[in-house]
Amino acid sequence: MTGSLTGSLYVVSTPIGNLDDITVRALNTLKAVGLVAAEDTRRTGLLLRHFGIATPTTSLHEHNESEKLPTLLQKLADGIDIALVSDAGTPLVADPGQRFIAAAIQHGIRVVPIPGASAVLAALAASGYAADEFVFAGFAPSRSKDRRLWLARLVEEPRAVVFFETPHRIQQALVDMAEILVDRPITVARELTKLHETIVWTTARQAADLQIPDRGEFTIVLAPYTKSNTEVSDVDDEELSAYFYRMTDSVELSRRKALIATADKFGLSPNDVYARLERLKASRPS
Amino acid sequence: MTGSLTGSLYVVSTPIGNLDDITVRALNTLKAVGLVAAEDTRRTGLLLRHFGIATPTTSLHEHNESEKLPTLLQKLADGIDIALVSDAGTPLVADPGQRFIAAAIQHGIRVVPIPGASAVLAALAASGYAADEFVFAGFAPSRSKDRRLWLARLVEEPRAVVFFETPHRIQQALVDMAEILVDRPITVARELTKLHETIVWTTARQAADLQIPDRGEFTIVLAPYTKSNTEVSDVDDEELSAYFYRMTDSVELSRRKALIATADKFGLSPNDVYARLERLKASRPS
Repeated sequence: MTGSLTGSLYVVSTPIGNLDDITVRALNTLKAVGLVAAEDTRRTGLLLRHFGIATPTTSLHEHNESEKLPTLLQKLADGIDIALVSDAGTPLVADPGQRFIAAAIQHGIRVVPIPGASAVLAALAASGYAADEFVFAGFAPSRSKDRRLWLARLVEEPRAVVFFETPHRIQQALVDMAEILVDRPITVARELTKLHETIVWTTARQAADLQIPDRGEFTIVLAPYTKSNTEVSDVDDEELSAYFYRMTDSVELSRRKALIATADKFGLSPNDVYARLERLKASRPS
Repeated sequence: MTGSLTGSLYVVSTPIGNLDDITVRALNTLKAVGLVAAEDTRRTGLLLRHFGIATPTTSLHEHNESEKLPTLLQKLADGIDIALVSDAGTPLVADPGQRFIAAAIQHGIRVVPIPGASAVLAALAASGYAADEFVFAGFAPSRSKDRRLWLARLVEEPRAVVFFETPHRIQQALVDMAEILVDRPITVARELTKLHETIVWTTARQAADLQIPDRGEFTIVLAPYTKSNTEVSDVDDEELSAYFYRMTDSVELSRRKALIATADKFGLSPNDVYARLERLKASRPS
């Protein structure tokens, strides 16, 4: 595909679910190269056969990358063009292949990106959140304790945040998010681009109540942090305050019991009620 | 395209330069919808004509978005499917259209992302840097003073960083990067996917000497920060800083003269001393 004597390395984006999410150029490139280095040759084989492409494949994943690098670099040096693909989406984004690309660059090989589908950008585009800037945070940590700390660090992130979660952890992750991100708008995307694509626009608090199937791949987008989206929207603090003082003054509950009753009534924690009462007091001229 | 009575909003990624960087599904969608809402109807018209697509277009950009929203939402309510496209790449990523998507979601319209090309991911994939996580930082600030402060904040960013720069500011931006990011590996991509695509893998320091044409679109990728890629061998920045402030405070040199004296003392350029002082300041909690 090039006039030079050495081959080129094409970093080719492939579909993330729907096989038609492949570009014209990606198909032409996969046809034209001498070899496709694939994370999983079986999976990439299905894609190639679907489009009638007979290019040979070779496996390249994190467990054989070091071992296979010399052979692949030699092929490039011999003038063979290679396409690098991952199982889905754009290679490098949470995918193997990085060492191959880095080594090719060091050897002066021409590296050409062939852009295409990515779950990160698909979820972001569907979220409707401002994305002049954003953070891709990879996979959420697997242990709940680590995940909660990790979420806590995202609480005041002023950019949209995209991350992945596995099907068997999504439910617990949503519970953690409800507690830590509270009323942050979030978008939960499942099986993006596939037949059962589901995208839910909600808040962290409400997402914990979703009936989420424990199958499929999940991409979560957090809206950028703003002061206003951390405040609970649907509780009127004046109403809450009036209820609380009715409980203490008329019903003659103790402050502690009135806090609990008010919390129950408005679906908040007693701490949250306390914080709201204090805030309301502070906002009033004494 | 759907069985429901209201239309769907398709958020369609389009090419960033090479017209063949469009997916099969994007083409099918642009053909099937009743209307294409485009950032620039002239530019999108070229794309549609190239692929023989006759779907009518309407302009939707930041200056008419509020005004046009009611009409577009009405069309969706009337059962007309709409595709939203930007000039290039994936809508929302540093592009208008966000209010339209957000409003559609609020009105219960089905929003479907059609993934495809993006300069952000193309540059990242070509960089060869680890991208398990990354930050898209938008456009670099236009004023050099703001840009330097912004770069100083990225000095210790442990994730790969992607940002855009305009052709008329790229040379000055590279000079600023050389001073502030010093030996950080960076990838400078120009005219991604186009005929004159150029990708340079270098360091911030060396990039300042590149002969860069002042045309084309630039996407910069910074390698993730690691201790080893920012420290210059044998100079202790704390020592350098202490010396500099001894020169200004005790010896009462002007800042300029103190910079020169410190540069002489440590065998660096005055600009390098300045960058190290800025970096040290940026790395300290204020």
